[in-house]
Amino acid sequence: MALLEPSKHSQGSVLGGVNPDLASERQTASFSVEKLTACLDGGEENTRQRRAVVEAIERDPAFSRENQYFQSQNERYEAAVRKAVHLQKKMHEMGWTETGPEFKYIYRAVSGDIAFLLHRIFIRSISMLGSDKQIDKWIPLATQHKLIGSYAQTELGHGTYLQGLETTAVFDSTTQEFILNTPKISAMKWWPGDMGRSATHTVVFAQLYTNGQCYGVHPFIVQIRSLRDHSLCPGITAGDIGPKMNFEHVDNGYLMLQNVRVPRENMLNRFCEVQPDGTYVRQGSQKINYFTMTTVRISLISDEVIMPLMKACTIAIRYSVVRRQSKLKPGEQEAKILDYQTQQEKLLPQLAAAYAFHFINNYLQELFNRGYREIQKNNFETLPELHAFSSGFKAMVTQYSTSAVQICLQACGGHGYSSLSGLPFLYTKIIASCIYEGENTILLLQTARFLIKCLRAASTGQPVPPSVTYLAAVKPGKCPAKNKLEFLSPKIYTEAYQHMAARLVSSAAAKLQDLIQSGVKKHDAWNQCTVQLAQAAKAHCHYITVKNFAETVEKLKTEAGIRRIMKHLCDLFALHGIFSNAGVFLHDGYISGAQMDMITASYLDLLAVIRKDAVPLVDAFDFTDKSLNSALGSYDGQVYQRLYEWAQKSPTNKQMSPAYEMYLKPLLHNTQSKL
Amino acid sequence: MALLEPSKHSQGSVLGGVNPDLASERQTASFSVEKLTACLDGGEENTRQRRAVVEAIERDPAFSRENQYFQSQNERYEAAVRKAVHLQKKMHEMGWTETGPEFKYIYRAVSGDIAFLLHRIFIRSISMLGSDKQIDKWIPLATQHKLIGSYAQTELGHGTYLQGLETTAVFDSTTQEFILNTPKISAMKWWPGDMGRSATHTVVFAQLYTNGQCYGVHPFIVQIRSLRDHSLCPGITAGDIGPKMNFEHVDNGYLMLQNVRVPRENMLNRFCEVQPDGTYVRQGSQKINYFTMTTVRISLISDEVIMPLMKACTIAIRYSVVRRQSKLKPGEQEAKILDYQTQQEKLLPQLAAAYAFHFINNYLQELFNRGYREIQKNNFETLPELHAFSSGFKAMVTQYSTSAVQICLQACGGHGYSSLSGLPFLYTKIIASCIYEGENTILLLQTARFLIKCLRAASTGQPVPPSVTYLAAVKPGKCPAKNKLEFLSPKIYTEAYQHMAARLVSSAAAKLQDLIQSGVKKHDAWNQCTVQLAQAAKAHCHYITVKNFAETVEKLKTEAGIRRIMKHLCDLFALHGIFSNAGVFLHDGYISGAQMDMITASYLDLLAVIRKDAVPLVDAFDFTDKSLNSALGSYDGQVYQRLYEWAQKSPTNKQMSPAYEMYLKPLLHNTQSKL
Repeated sequence: MALLEPSKHSQGSVLGGVNPDLASERQTASFSVEKLTACLDGGEENTRQRRAVVEAIERDPAFSRENQYFQSQNERYEAAVRKAVHLQKKMHEMGWTETGPEFKYIYRAVSGDIAFLLHRIFIRSISMLGSDKQIDKWIPLATQHKLIGSYAQTELGHGTYLQGLETTAVFDSTTQEFILNTPKISAMKWWPGDMGRSATHTVVFAQLYTNGQCYGVHPFIVQIRSLRDHSLCPGITAGDIGPKMNFEHVDNGYLMLQNVRVPRENMLNRFCEVQPDGTYVRQGSQKINYFTMTTVRISLISDEVIMPLMKACTIAIRYSVVRRQSKLKPGEQEAKILDYQTQQEKLLPQLAAAYAFHFINNYLQELFNRGYREIQKNNFETLPELHAFSSGFKAMVTQYSTSAVQICLQACGGHGYSSLSGLPFLYTKIIASCIYEGENTILLLQTARFLIKCLRAASTGQPVPPSVTYLAAVKPGKCPAKNKLEFLSPKIYTEAYQHMAARLVSSAAAKLQDLIQSGVKKHDAWNQCTVQLAQAAKAHCHYITVKNFAETVEKLKTEAGIRRIMKHLCDLFALHGIFSNAGVFLHDGYISGAQMDMITASYLDLLAVIRKDAVPLVDAFDFTDKSLNSALGSYDGQVYQRLYEWAQKSPTNKQMSPAYEMYLKPLLHNTQSKL
Repeated sequence: MALLEPSKHSQGSVLGGVNPDLASERQTASFSVEKLTACLDGGEENTRQRRAVVEAIERDPAFSRENQYFQSQNERYEAAVRKAVHLQKKMHEMGWTETGPEFKYIYRAVSGDIAFLLHRIFIRSISMLGSDKQIDKWIPLATQHKLIGSYAQTELGHGTYLQGLETTAVFDSTTQEFILNTPKISAMKWWPGDMGRSATHTVVFAQLYTNGQCYGVHPFIVQIRSLRDHSLCPGITAGDIGPKMNFEHVDNGYLMLQNVRVPRENMLNRFCEVQPDGTYVRQGSQKINYFTMTTVRISLISDEVIMPLMKACTIAIRYSVVRRQSKLKPGEQEAKILDYQTQQEKLLPQLAAAYAFHFINNYLQELFNRGYREIQKNNFETLPELHAFSSGFKAMVTQYSTSAVQICLQACGGHGYSSLSGLPFLYTKIIASCIYEGENTILLLQTARFLIKCLRAASTGQPVPPSVTYLAAVKPGKCPAKNKLEFLSPKIYTEAYQHMAARLVSSAAAKLQDLIQSGVKKHDAWNQCTVQLAQAAKAHCHYITVKNFAETVEKLKTEAGIRRIMKHLCDLFALHGIFSNAGVFLHDGYISGAQMDMITASYLDLLAVIRKDAVPLVDAFDFTDKSLNSALGSYDGQVYQRLYEWAQKSPTNKQMSPAYEMYLKPLLHNTQSKL
């Protein structure tokens, strides 16, 4: 428990104890916060290990984020490089290894602002796509940092559509080299991280030409900067793409290639090779490549999406019991803003979503671990399902969480808009997750394609994965619940979600088929259904998330208090989803208007119930003050003091602005050139 | 037409002509863009005047925004002060006055990044709340810039709830002074613009105490900085509140007062006065004060909300016909992304909303001008309606437009996330409009309170304003439309909106009454209904917006092509609203599931129709490249070249980062202290 003591959480400022308005919220917790934390971590031992990593990192001033909100793009980049280099030292010092149990907590502990993430992708891509010989040559160089790698796939003109990449690599058999070129401006590599200023090498994806024929996109190792003095290599034009909404710590770069020659051995050739005479030979299966993208999508959900959402909930909910504004009843003290129903309705569904996504993430991890074991046995059967899951859930969870963080920010009013709240930073970062690793709409349509296929298969009696057997079982019907309490039954609401998802998938499929039968060409027909297909895919993921939450709560082995509050959160997540998407449930009469009123009543009742445990529920996420880096969200709730203290550190308060001597003084003293 | 020529629009860079993919979109316009522009401006003469102002400002390098995305908070503040001072000179030079026809175009022309907006509020508040004697003393000083004013209302602990302000002003009759104090940290003034670094004076709102009694919040003129050297006055602590999500050009400030004495004459006393012996006298009506807040809310909608929304639509739609990605049909050229239904469904409803909000803004302006004329005749009858309108529409339009700009940003994929697209800047600025000048939820509840009152009045036969007579007329019924084409009738969809709004207001009212009758105390009952009350208020505003759009189109006196496309946009705005809020229309069976399918079909059909005119429709907004300041949205569509050109100007590319010598070189050369 020591780590939860306020003293360990403070930023070293001289402040009072815990704000009594926040302290009182903790005294009435209906469950053990410490046990819920252990539950989220997957056991007490994990909690202990995580806290030890966090403490070691946060105690080290090299990892401080104290000035983060005041830094320029240049300063954030420099800090990220410094931390990445220092982390190597730290890991050595602490005895942490990349395969050890501590490793997965390091990223959480440094809170993401660190360089060389693309260096890791460089290593991973060589390990997966390179031959044993290539691995033996490059991996030691990379892991010992004798070079810094990047991964140059995206171009100015192409992101999602990889087949459209325009960079070329032409094989020259006379010199046994590939000649790489950027034939036009849209072919310039654009966005690769670690490439704008740091990398010495990169994996370049280019259209391979040999013996006058194009064989599609292949990866090539290209050196871009001198290992001696970091100057650009001949034929290379590279730099930083400039300011972004966030991610200013990353040197996302551009790269232009003019007749850059690399030896034949630099094409990664585990799966295909250009022989000395220019003959192209493909070997083995490329299916496994999809699996890499799939695992990346799943692995980012936890660190880049759920973690920020949990932080935003922590900040907004703690602030909402410290902030008092206006009166609920005349003559009384001003009320905590979390006592207003509208504030509860903003924040508590986001809190429930954070738990829902934590549990669905566990489910996905397990699914993928199982799938990976199968794939290692050369059984690729589950690949389509895994791909559909990773696409759909990446899209749903990132979009939902982005909105949720935005709601948290806006729910904090003006102070939420201050960078010192930490919320603008969380928001501008999480919104990128909707775009990177696959644009969400395109991902949803991939999931939809899978669902349509499964529906057709199931309808004709062919086997489909268990997760989608429900699709063929949809029939008209009505929800049997008769009063608002019955809507707190997981069976009732899970079935409603299932019915709704199956209806949306089958009606999109029906529209598609009607169009094709009426003579519309297949691709036009698909395009004309995409709005509804994307909606159906989202509905499927929403259903699975609700179902998984309910099943997880059912199976929870922990104290009754935790099981009770988790059940409430599950109910809230489910009913909020029905309340906010009422149309798709009412559409075919499965839920009636009268039932929707019952759902609304149950939903609003739940807000008041969960509100009582709101602070303990965010305390259980167990973020330190340093990791929240928020003047509004600290453990002690000394919000106003901290805003004041932090504001004084702003560079805008360091000295009188030159604007005074240059503009204000002449204006006030009327000494400027005649107005 | 000269101003629409690409050459005038370019940023002076050496680029090719108009991208053919963008040029082709303009050749097929179904209407005259120039005539639509005149229509939006309210006549050709206005268009001419606006362009002249924009040209004069943009030609002057002092107003350049070229480096805006690379600037630090300090630099943005300095530029804003420089521009504000220079603007005085410019106005003199051009012969523009504050009451002239050009004045309203200046803010659009400088694109908002300018100081001294609070100096204006300082002047306005003295003009409204000060006595003639006070006006005679202070207004000349302010207009001649012998002082710089600010407006210190909001405190760390209080924003919306003005009665809760904690700053005190105690009258001392022995010296005939008020003694101002900040009794605790939460009472510190926080957020006032122009106050952190610029202002010499400010209007401080404080609880007035005289003869041992508190008389509530009153305004006092307080000098905070020396007119000689800008140093803080005795008893004053002030500074900048630090970084924000945007608005970094404004020196939002903090202010602490310790026994600061101001003469009795410094309390603004048009409506109330403290006499020399400390007697408090109230005179006249304070009702007019509400009207100030009301007009501010309405006046911000155009410049701070609709303008950025129109810019975001312009950027995203132009980019979406230049960006080609993936293939609609195998074997064909890659498709423009605006040809995908999902992209149309993202952007075109936002375009329709921009037009809808432009027209509702005209309607509100007219309503307020009429109301103001009445008020000048001492007729305060329309005040409640005007207040309810200004609150509800401010909330609805800011929230809707904020989401719309976010959708535009995300619809541009990775490049939308780059600051150089201009979209992050527009988004982080517009989101603040949901908070300032009244937090949206609180505003909606004020509108709801008005609607409930009107419903009760109307039900008992009392007179209510024409805009709300519909509330009492709700009866069960069904929408009569029989096929998808009938849903393109404004009568059909306007009635559906009316029915839905009336139902939501009356069912919230019924719930409120039921609770009170069942013994719940009035204030608790109100709180328990607020989620539904806010929803009802939003529905009312949505209905009025649809109705006004339809009526405006009906009355449009312009060429047939414009009337046709405006009708399509009106239909799209209305049907998109039903599609996205299906639940509230289906709830009581007014719209059936089968009818919802017709609505969906009509809605999706409209997307394909409007898509053809999408570029001309944003061209008609008539933004220059300089005002868009976007690498993605320029008139010539040379997106990739411009991204590349602009990125090279980034400070991250000015020199090799010190991170190389400090961290990367030692790492690569293995000369750092032992790993």
